[in-house]
Amino acid sequence: MNQPKRVLIVGAVAGGASCAARLRRLDEQAEIVLFDRGPFASFANCGLPYYVGGVIEDERQLLLASPDLFRQRFNIEVRTRNEVAAIDRSRCEIEARDLATGRLYRERYDALVLSPGATPLRPQVPGVDLPGIFALRTIPDSRDIREWIQTRRPARAVVVGAGLIGLEMTENLVRRGLQVTVVERLPQVMPALDPEMAEPVSRRLETNRVALHLDDAVSAFEADPNGALRVTTHSGRSFAADLVILAAGTRPESDLAKAAGLEVGSSGGIRVDESMRTSDPRIWAVGDAVEVRDLVTGQWRLVPLAGPAQRQARVAVDSICGREARFRGAQGTMVCGFFGLTVALTGATEKDLRGAGISDYQAVYLHPGSHAGYYPGAKPLHMKLIFRRGDGRILGAQAVGEEGVEKRIDVLAVAIQKQATVFDLEECELCYAPQYGAAKDPVNLAGMVAANVLRGDVQLAPWEELPQTVALLVDVRDPDEFAAGHIDGAVNVPLGELRRRIGELPREREIWVYCELGQRSYYAVRFLRQNGFQVRNLSGGYQTYWGWYP
Amino acid sequence: MNQPKRVLIVGAVAGGASCAARLRRLDEQAEIVLFDRGPFASFANCGLPYYVGGVIEDERQLLLASPDLFRQRFNIEVRTRNEVAAIDRSRCEIEARDLATGRLYRERYDALVLSPGATPLRPQVPGVDLPGIFALRTIPDSRDIREWIQTRRPARAVVVGAGLIGLEMTENLVRRGLQVTVVERLPQVMPALDPEMAEPVSRRLETNRVALHLDDAVSAFEADPNGALRVTTHSGRSFAADLVILAAGTRPESDLAKAAGLEVGSSGGIRVDESMRTSDPRIWAVGDAVEVRDLVTGQWRLVPLAGPAQRQARVAVDSICGREARFRGAQGTMVCGFFGLTVALTGATEKDLRGAGISDYQAVYLHPGSHAGYYPGAKPLHMKLIFRRGDGRILGAQAVGEEGVEKRIDVLAVAIQKQATVFDLEECELCYAPQYGAAKDPVNLAGMVAANVLRGDVQLAPWEELPQTVALLVDVRDPDEFAAGHIDGAVNVPLGELRRRIGELPREREIWVYCELGQRSYYAVRFLRQNGFQVRNLSGGYQTYWGWYP
Repeated sequence: MNQPKRVLIVGAVAGGASCAARLRRLDEQAEIVLFDRGPFASFANCGLPYYVGGVIEDERQLLLASPDLFRQRFNIEVRTRNEVAAIDRSRCEIEARDLATGRLYRERYDALVLSPGATPLRPQVPGVDLPGIFALRTIPDSRDIREWIQTRRPARAVVVGAGLIGLEMTENLVRRGLQVTVVERLPQVMPALDPEMAEPVSRRLETNRVALHLDDAVSAFEADPNGALRVTTHSGRSFAADLVILAAGTRPESDLAKAAGLEVGSSGGIRVDESMRTSDPRIWAVGDAVEVRDLVTGQWRLVPLAGPAQRQARVAVDSICGREARFRGAQGTMVCGFFGLTVALTGATEKDLRGAGISDYQAVYLHPGSHAGYYPGAKPLHMKLIFRRGDGRILGAQAVGEEGVEKRIDVLAVAIQKQATVFDLEECELCYAPQYGAAKDPVNLAGMVAANVLRGDVQLAPWEELPQTVALLVDVRDPDEFAAGHIDGAVNVPLGELRRRIGELPREREIWVYCELGQRSYYAVRFLRQNGFQVRNLSGGYQTYWGWYP
Repeated sequence: MNQPKRVLIVGAVAGGASCAARLRRLDEQAEIVLFDRGPFASFANCGLPYYVGGVIEDERQLLLASPDLFRQRFNIEVRTRNEVAAIDRSRCEIEARDLATGRLYRERYDALVLSPGATPLRPQVPGVDLPGIFALRTIPDSRDIREWIQTRRPARAVVVGAGLIGLEMTENLVRRGLQVTVVERLPQVMPALDPEMAEPVSRRLETNRVALHLDDAVSAFEADPNGALRVTTHSGRSFAADLVILAAGTRPESDLAKAAGLEVGSSGGIRVDESMRTSDPRIWAVGDAVEVRDLVTGQWRLVPLAGPAQRQARVAVDSICGREARFRGAQGTMVCGFFGLTVALTGATEKDLRGAGISDYQAVYLHPGSHAGYYPGAKPLHMKLIFRRGDGRILGAQAVGEEGVEKRIDVLAVAIQKQATVFDLEECELCYAPQYGAAKDPVNLAGMVAANVLRGDVQLAPWEELPQTVALLVDVRDPDEFAAGHIDGAVNVPLGELRRRIGELPREREIWVYCELGQRSYYAVRFLRQNGFQVRNLSGGYQTYWGWYP
């Protein structure tokens, strides 16, 4: 009879816990031991900002499975407060430390899974370890912040970093009554987005009285004599704060792997093959600590998100059990919500594509309603679709709005997964009743706008060249819309008057047409083109303009 | 120089209006005339129930484009209150009647597009034309109903038909304060769903004090002496009503096509090829009046929905303009909402598959939360996924719930369009933040549940054989759940006690395991199977049970 397989798992959150549970389902005989240096077996780390904010009131809500449940239900041993300190690959052993007693001990493995996660980056500046400065990774971290809020009653917070966690924390601190200042190193919030798509996010933060300081970085933290903190930045600004949250990104916890001589990529993440196996054939790694192939660009990247971690855990376990399994790569699908706004993206941004040296792409913008305009309550969606010029393959999509944002990004995520083109999007048959969508859903419209470009029905004007263009700008909106704000130098010829006033337009000079959303200008472009004019469309119209030129 | 092409379009709603607008964008020279026997150029017919209910207050909201706008903006002539009475194919002329004057006249065409829509079915029973009995197709219809409600102050309504329109009307009449009785010929509401998936819909209607009479049909309408209506049914029931809505389906308006000798399918819809061309090469047809290929079953069917009509309009116009164009078929994606519940489906149901003689399929059920359980407000989703046993191809999906229903069906609609398998669903990378989804989204879970079956990790027990089975039913829920209700004859062995009590279970007799949702029973199945038991899972557990055996 075979010896039962002994599998050790380092890290009990997300990927690690999933590994253990699936392994048990596939192999009733295996000995499974889960190590975690924290006090819990498995907890919902994506819920932590909402626990701080009090949306989730009871800490027990965050505990997904206790060590008892693991033992009783799955016959899995969980050793919390036990840290794996080293891997002895030649002997297939790990060295662990019981944090309660300090005892060091060794455990043999047949297979080892590393799921240590990622650790918040701490700016290397003076004072970063002062009391009142917190990062958020674990339940104890969130407890500390809650306690600080409850006992100190802070009024002012500085959040360092305007990414997903930073903005979720910002919302939750505002919810607790704090005045929040956000300091972000880059010139935009939500660095995962292209800058013009981040503009509506900035506006929403500002209308919720969040002070934004972009393109600036913290240079020091000091303790004021009155007990508050003083945060100074490279630009010379200075903010008083009663609480600081560090949310400037994370770093994969690959030190253990590195020390054991496992291959680590240039991003700092553990390098794995398609079956999540590291450079040692007895060791697998999953989750925020690994680097993965980007499905669109083909580049190695870090994708510290729970969804991919779950899929990686399945793949690793299948591989350990001798099944065929392949992680297909990550596409970076992401969503985040604050102040009633939802921001989501999937696939590559223009920044990603440029970073990967890819230039055969085109972007279009649209701003449809979340559902049929004739039914009350529709909210604008700001969408950007990026596709390959050569064949129309969808490369990425970004969307911002109050309703229906994540639905469209999910649909587009599957389209990217299945290598769909913009022509497929034109043909999607999606749910339509007036309170849910439109006969032409925003996803269909995105496909149509893009396909119109590829079929040569419309040529697009490049937004980035607007300040330098010698083209005549024609605004085809109604006069009252034009009067309320327009692009400098544009002339106003409302669409309804275009047939009649066609004689006013020059035939030798290129014309760039725009309207509010891009639909009326599309009609105008088709009309003018068929009448022999050289004409381009400013994709997405005035709604796109203020994203580019705020 | 070429003569401009003369294109006549019959029917100005949805398909017809879209044809006209797109044709103008592609061909600035064409002469385009749009005929409609009604008073409007283009209106939002999917909004009519909500106009009756007062959700949409202003009738003008429903008017998408006026004849003036068509003329001014697009140089398109719209002849409302003009009915096309006949087609003279040999002379390429139509005969039209001006309904205001009664004048008959002829118009020549180079291309003719038929977009006449579908007409509500009227039961052929005595009294169906009595005052107070309405069907809902046009703005004047909805005006009549609104006026009847405002002037007569009806208290009781009977809605004939429990399909999409019937239930939307039911909700809107309840909203107006009426007590509604629904009479449906079939033994279930929402006939587009499989019966067990319609069960939560029935419950929701009943908790909103809607009286349901299924498996029954109206046999007569009479006028009571007191001015009310009396509705009697084949089963002998009788209801007093102050208002009756006929919503028992529609019939394609193919009489004009038939009279002209165009081919009509067995469903009664106009037969078209992939470019939406009828059997006459100068005549195209789109919308509710045509029959289309079902993308999943390959059968001809009627799909009277706005989304496919829009796509068909594009295809027809592209074909008229000499472009390559192909309607890929319809998959019947559909959504409808009432009383806070959303019902949606895409692709084939089991009924559809059986009707098409297809038996190589398997269905699984699941009941995940709409988002992560640890974040407040998650609502249960009832989902059914149908896939091909041979290769895992997704064939259809149905979902019912309060939140996130249409999102999952949209994702699955694209998956079906792109011929994805359940293995693809396991790997979908979808939006996850706790208020939007889960690290394993319901779509991922559906894929996993299905893939577990195809990989042989779980065998499913057939729900339909439950009453006859000789298997031992094991309920692995907790004792309090068992006590609150369980399947007759089941024994209770909670999952946590299964390892310890394994000796109590028989090795010779097949065991069917269930829990509340299907997840704990999956663990139990894996455990028992690896210990040598013959065991099957009742997919979706107790939540599925009450759909099958209400």
